Amino acid sequence: MAHHVVRIEVWLRDGLVDPEGRTVSEALSGMGFPVLSARAGKIYEVTIDAGSAVEAESLAREMCEALLANPVRDSYRVEVLGDG
Amino acid sequence: MAHHVVRIEVWLRDGLVDPEGRTVSEALSGMGFPVLSARAGKIYEVTIDAGSAVEAESLAREMCEALLANPVRDSYRVEVLGDG
Repeated sequence: MAHHVVRIEVWLRDGLVDPEGRTVSEALSGMGFPVLSARAGKIYEVTIDAGSAVEAESLAREMCEALLANPVRDSYRVEVLGDG
Repeated sequence: MAHHVVRIEVWLRDGLVDPEGRTVSEALSGMGFPVLSARAGKIYEVTIDAGSAVEAESLAREMCEALLANPVRDSYRVEVLGDG
């Protein structure tokens, strides 16, 4: 077994209203920044004990399905960064 | 001018206690996942109207300093993804 660091991004599914993204966009525009739009999400870096990078990625997907991402409204991206 | 999509990650500075990361790590371990540790952060994708990718990155850094990242406790990463 080895330690693998996996990066997990959780975003609202495209097409859903993103209140936080809209708030950020309006606040930045109000400060004078040339912002057209913004999306806001969560990001995690999780150190996992797994036999391989492939296993670590599969475990990370299970973690998203089980806890980190709401299957109805969220989409997620998983990327194995390397050994922790 | 052109539209540039910039990805901004905001993390707690290394060494600071990460309550959310710890909660996620404990919850996942409690569900039986082989998690050793976890960090939690925020991620934004911002579409900016700028003359170049370099200008877009510079603007994104200013946005972090002005609003998106708390200079005392946060660190941030900026990456220009491409034209929006």
